[in-house]
Amino acid sequence: MDYNATTPMEPEVIQVISEALLEAWGNPSSNHLAGAMAKAIINQSRQNVARMVGGKAEDIVFTSGGTEANNLVLHTAMEHFKKTCSAAEHGGGVQNGCTGLPHIITSNVEHDSIALTAKHLQTVGKADVTCVPVSKVTARLDVEDIIAAVRPNTCLISVMLANNETGVIMPIQEICQRVKSLNKQHERLRILLHTDAAQALGKIPVDVQELGVDYLTIVGHKFYAPRVGALYVNGPGTKTPLYPMLFGGGQESNFRPGTENTPMIAGLGKAAELVTANLSTYQSHMLNIKMYLEERLRDVFRDKIRFNSHYPGSDILPNTCNVSILGPALQGWRVLSNCRRLLASVGAACHSASGNRPSHILLSCGVPAEVAANALRLSVGRETSKEDVDAVVEDLRETVQLLEKMN
Amino acid sequence: MDYNATTPMEPEVIQVISEALLEAWGNPSSNHLAGAMAKAIINQSRQNVARMVGGKAEDIVFTSGGTEANNLVLHTAMEHFKKTCSAAEHGGGVQNGCTGLPHIITSNVEHDSIALTAKHLQTVGKADVTCVPVSKVTARLDVEDIIAAVRPNTCLISVMLANNETGVIMPIQEICQRVKSLNKQHERLRILLHTDAAQALGKIPVDVQELGVDYLTIVGHKFYAPRVGALYVNGPGTKTPLYPMLFGGGQESNFRPGTENTPMIAGLGKAAELVTANLSTYQSHMLNIKMYLEERLRDVFRDKIRFNSHYPGSDILPNTCNVSILGPALQGWRVLSNCRRLLASVGAACHSASGNRPSHILLSCGVPAEVAANALRLSVGRETSKEDVDAVVEDLRETVQLLEKMN
Repeated sequence: MDYNATTPMEPEVIQVISEALLEAWGNPSSNHLAGAMAKAIINQSRQNVARMVGGKAEDIVFTSGGTEANNLVLHTAMEHFKKTCSAAEHGGGVQNGCTGLPHIITSNVEHDSIALTAKHLQTVGKADVTCVPVSKVTARLDVEDIIAAVRPNTCLISVMLANNETGVIMPIQEICQRVKSLNKQHERLRILLHTDAAQALGKIPVDVQELGVDYLTIVGHKFYAPRVGALYVNGPGTKTPLYPMLFGGGQESNFRPGTENTPMIAGLGKAAELVTANLSTYQSHMLNIKMYLEERLRDVFRDKIRFNSHYPGSDILPNTCNVSILGPALQGWRVLSNCRRLLASVGAACHSASGNRPSHILLSCGVPAEVAANALRLSVGRETSKEDVDAVVEDLRETVQLLEKMN
Repeated sequence: MDYNATTPMEPEVIQVISEALLEAWGNPSSNHLAGAMAKAIINQSRQNVARMVGGKAEDIVFTSGGTEANNLVLHTAMEHFKKTCSAAEHGGGVQNGCTGLPHIITSNVEHDSIALTAKHLQTVGKADVTCVPVSKVTARLDVEDIIAAVRPNTCLISVMLANNETGVIMPIQEICQRVKSLNKQHERLRILLHTDAAQALGKIPVDVQELGVDYLTIVGHKFYAPRVGALYVNGPGTKTPLYPMLFGGGQESNFRPGTENTPMIAGLGKAAELVTANLSTYQSHMLNIKMYLEERLRDVFRDKIRFNSHYPGSDILPNTCNVSILGPALQGWRVLSNCRRLLASVGAACHSASGNRPSHILLSCGVPAEVAANALRLSVGRETSKEDVDAVVEDLRETVQLLEKMN
């Protein structure tokens, strides 16, 4: 029950990867048949990935993963600010907002690939960063708080579509609508809009048109695809700026050079196709299983259970159940390390080295420290069954009994 | 005969990738068993890759490929210059060389992932770049020319180990020896030493100790491994600076965050193991086949043949034969597009979009324009047989006959 950390690949995905490993090993830039075959596979995948998010094929830039895609967006915002303001200096347009550093708005519950990148830019004096706190009641961002944080030099708002620990879905559409009104103001520096959809894709409908974003991060290994990713950009280099971080052989229209990882890109495309075809099945299955899980947990642990993924008025990913079993010896890490069958985590896998401190995400969402310390992030997958749930709940019951006895 | 563009994967490599796709899909950062399994595979691969180049496991940083590894080195040199000079300003050491921009020395025959990255840094005013020309007689860099280009603000020398079009092997060891003497000078800014070994690995012995480099770029898909890569760094962050381009979840000791591409990394390790075990077999086979190819070409085309990979005193990769068949209608692209069996290229695959201009690499090596226009880069592989050579030469013979008749 750790499918928010990563997912296995679907058999059909493994199949297309395996075929490409054997048959499409040509260099996609080669002018001969072997190259053309590889190129065709990549283009097909580009279409499938675009379709999954409601975009056009030419809006998809393949990357090595979500971390790179997120970094690319922040890099682009910095460069865009520089270019816009340098053009303005030479009489070429908008000048408001060009006095200080570029300003980035994000939330205080982002993944490290946004949070630490923004922090780095701030530390080295390249950007001003505002981390808008989520509400301690709803665990969501309040759109008004985002708008209130906007300054004349704001050039990017980057907010995740769904949180990886609580599963809370953020009001991206509303943020984009409000910001687009701002962007219409005369001489206003354009605010670019980004959402990291890593945890949302394959779990809830994601449509770039509906959301109204300029950029959307796509992470394969969260939706039963391999470890590559992509960045959706609404008209890269035309309608929406995109500045490469890497220079080289010109692949991905020079936005992301490097010989393409054809087999993994093929797998990403196949997984995207599966999401497009089966999303509602995946979604309702996961929701059913999660509801059963929460019911069983309540049955067994009764008043000792606290759900850290229930917030008034907030929508939650269908697969994510963040739960604490109350008691002095029942810290999340302790429970998990004593469970015999349950594989889960206490928070983001990327933080697993940071040890046994309560999740800063949960604290930010208003979860009291002693509850957060006991948190278990249970995330179900496409194949999780009610029998799995029964086994996990029984495992937890025995473990909790043991730990309470030992205490 | 386009194995310098890319290579197929060895069956054993596909095997370990396939196993990892199925069994090692856990997030290597997860604290549970699934994570530990993936982490173990990555560490094993790290050891194998390190052994291939004569380094230590902790010196290997996995990247998405060679383009990223090369960009990371140039980025690091810029950051290192900045940090060193900012420390010097505050009384912390070396001050010579800190007056201007950082200065990078490279050659005029590098891959675009070095050449265009350096050019970009120069264009945006972040670095001074000297592209030292190779000799038009030997097609090699002259060590004295490199040393003569050194300035007080030189912070990086980046020269490829072997050229992708001519196969010429560069005097990296001699450059490193000479530069290390310079580095011993009091108050001298340290010159970092990098070689892109993309085309050399799996073809000739490559040992980081012998070469004396600080950084070495490893590109999987040139030695029958998948499309990922690595950067060797001699003591990353301790003996040798390394500054990340990406920020995120802390993977690769924070030098290259992002959830690891376990299956591809597993394949890279297996391919490295094969190179360590079988290099001399690969090398002598490729050399034999190439010599047979050149003999057959001479037999068939006699005085119409020019080898653009023969230079007095220069060592050449065992697999690379760059050849022109002289004649007015025999441009490389025209010959290749009329061949029925031969798959080859006229130069780097990355340049395939640049059309039918003669290779600037060959022109830089002193090949006359009318000869360069007819160049074919034939690069043989581990499985290329004498029968393949016979078929290719016959194909070329018929094609040339046809084109001469049509002319």
